[in-house]
Amino acid sequence: MIVAGIMTGTSLDAIDVAICDISIEGDRESVTLVSFASTPYPDDVADLVSAAIAGTATMEQLSDLPFELSRAYAAALSPFRPFAIDLIGVHGQTLWHHPPVSTWQGASGPALSALIGLPVVHDFRAADVALGGQGAPLVPIFDQMMLRHATQDRIALNIGGMANITLLPNSRIAEQPNNRIEEERSVRAFDTGPGNVLINAICRRTYGARYDDGGRFARAGVINQRALDELKAHPYFAMEPPKSTGREVFSDDMAEMLYRKFAHPSVPSEDLIATLTELTAWSITDHILRYQPSTTEVIVSGGGVHNTYLMERMRTLAPGMVFTSSADHGVDPDAKEAMCFAYLAARTYHGLPGNIPSVTGASRAVVLGSVSAQTPIR
Amino acid sequence: MIVAGIMTGTSLDAIDVAICDISIEGDRESVTLVSFASTPYPDDVADLVSAAIAGTATMEQLSDLPFELSRAYAAALSPFRPFAIDLIGVHGQTLWHHPPVSTWQGASGPALSALIGLPVVHDFRAADVALGGQGAPLVPIFDQMMLRHATQDRIALNIGGMANITLLPNSRIAEQPNNRIEEERSVRAFDTGPGNVLINAICRRTYGARYDDGGRFARAGVINQRALDELKAHPYFAMEPPKSTGREVFSDDMAEMLYRKFAHPSVPSEDLIATLTELTAWSITDHILRYQPSTTEVIVSGGGVHNTYLMERMRTLAPGMVFTSSADHGVDPDAKEAMCFAYLAARTYHGLPGNIPSVTGASRAVVLGSVSAQTPIR
Repeated sequence: MIVAGIMTGTSLDAIDVAICDISIEGDRESVTLVSFASTPYPDDVADLVSAAIAGTATMEQLSDLPFELSRAYAAALSPFRPFAIDLIGVHGQTLWHHPPVSTWQGASGPALSALIGLPVVHDFRAADVALGGQGAPLVPIFDQMMLRHATQDRIALNIGGMANITLLPNSRIAEQPNNRIEEERSVRAFDTGPGNVLINAICRRTYGARYDDGGRFARAGVINQRALDELKAHPYFAMEPPKSTGREVFSDDMAEMLYRKFAHPSVPSEDLIATLTELTAWSITDHILRYQPSTTEVIVSGGGVHNTYLMERMRTLAPGMVFTSSADHGVDPDAKEAMCFAYLAARTYHGLPGNIPSVTGASRAVVLGSVSAQTPIR
Repeated sequence: MIVAGIMTGTSLDAIDVAICDISIEGDRESVTLVSFASTPYPDDVADLVSAAIAGTATMEQLSDLPFELSRAYAAALSPFRPFAIDLIGVHGQTLWHHPPVSTWQGASGPALSALIGLPVVHDFRAADVALGGQGAPLVPIFDQMMLRHATQDRIALNIGGMANITLLPNSRIAEQPNNRIEEERSVRAFDTGPGNVLINAICRRTYGARYDDGGRFARAGVINQRALDELKAHPYFAMEPPKSTGREVFSDDMAEMLYRKFAHPSVPSEDLIATLTELTAWSITDHILRYQPSTTEVIVSGGGVHNTYLMERMRTLAPGMVFTSSADHGVDPDAKEAMCFAYLAARTYHGLPGNIPSVTGASRAVVLGSVSAQTPIR
């Protein structure tokens, strides 16, 4: 089955499309990346999404948004049409995330399906939230299938706009069915806080750069310890998982506030970028050390893997753990989330649940999303 | 197949649930109403929807709305659980309708499906709008199946918040497959303008009544010809179909404006109600006379069928046509739209298109909506 996964994250910089060859048969599952491209997010759609998230969009704009997004997705898909795609999984754009009350993923499955004439699965978070879950993160079921090891305790880390980790304790117990005393340790996962969101906001504000390429700004700066200590005191970091966060907490507004508070003609902008990079490195490694100190390997994906300074800081803050790129395990670090939504779409299409209750806090495992199909769904 | 159709119209007064026994096999289709109930709309949800439509809802409220609605739908469904329901079709609440750019039906299929553990089809209008259609009306395919006659030209009329008609020219030509010269005359349908929306708004404003019971207020009033002429000049009425409208055009605000303009201590409120009732009767019959003067029977459904004064006014304005209740044709007039969405859900589930391009203006027929299923969809 050829499945296209479409991911648009909180950073609004690109529409990621991953074409995957997926096989789901009983316990034997595989996802192989066939092709991947990251298309720039159209400016007018990014403006619409930003206005929605900022709460300044009109009802008309909010109504138009999923249709504009669908047209942008259809355009991003068009170079891949030669792949004979069977199914599309689209994450959509998170406009509001307020678990366990509600979540709002802007995307129209019916519109996209009608435009391209293929079945589309969308709105993956709502069912989990309706069952009391956080609706996030959803990547852990993919991490578990691709990255879990029989004898090593691993962590899958994704650094996008936000950063999240999946605790993958070794599956040894599960492979000894006669040993009924020890229970299999659950996969757990949660957002650790900001990934690149604050760093990117300051790079834009100060250098007009979309991100800190290779961490060069941060590397040139000096950490402002007072600012860092203040940021570490944000209540999100101390909260017990399951927990998730987003741009309604770690926002451009927050970055702007930090800029106004700490920027000064005598202080290089690099200092604030270094400080925010340290916040990301600290919040990630602090959660790892708190919740799975036995970790041997941290497998990193998302844009943050390219920030070599951030990677160095994490290695320093969590000595004894190996930090690798997910590419070493068959998962292109930039394509990972798009691959995950291709996999989740295939699960939904096969009537299989996509959430892990120990991760999201939902009352049960549930088939996620909604299928819009231009052909009989049987 | 037992299918529950859930309809919540623009008047925000009730959640209608129709339990239907549906058979779809080739050309032999049938829909039989098994049970029906109209549950009061929860006040807090109605307030949320009203705020959304008025453009005063926050992003948080807009995010919560589909989840609150899903809980209300689940509650409205619970008395029907003994019916062993196979599938649910839910119209949702129209928050914005701006074809052919976009449409917004507030409802969460995944949330409702997760809450009740049954497959749900929702968001029926988006695919048609994405293909350049008006996304409305969708009832015509149901009217065609239930009410079209071999030799008589009929009209199906629904009077809800808005009023809409389906032109059902006789199907004689279609039954003579050898006659290839004459084309089958297409089914067409469109909104004629306000149904009960303005009448209800004034009843609330003046008497605190939810609607004009049996048309008694209107019957006691005198039509204000100057006001009526001014209202008839609204550009919507002269527009050529396909066309559709909603509360963003014929709104409570419009009713309030009319009240302020025409109410006076010396003028009984009944006069304004009579005038708005005449506007509804005129706009319906005027469209019928313009677009299918050969009509022999007008088959009426929706709350308006109970307004005997409105029925009388239509009979007077379109002499020579018989006005009957859809009950005479096996369609409970109050249950019709809910029955229709049960039928549309069954069509989607069977991979059959649900729109009629000659009605909506879409570029092609398309499978409508999105299926959220807790069991394998095969």
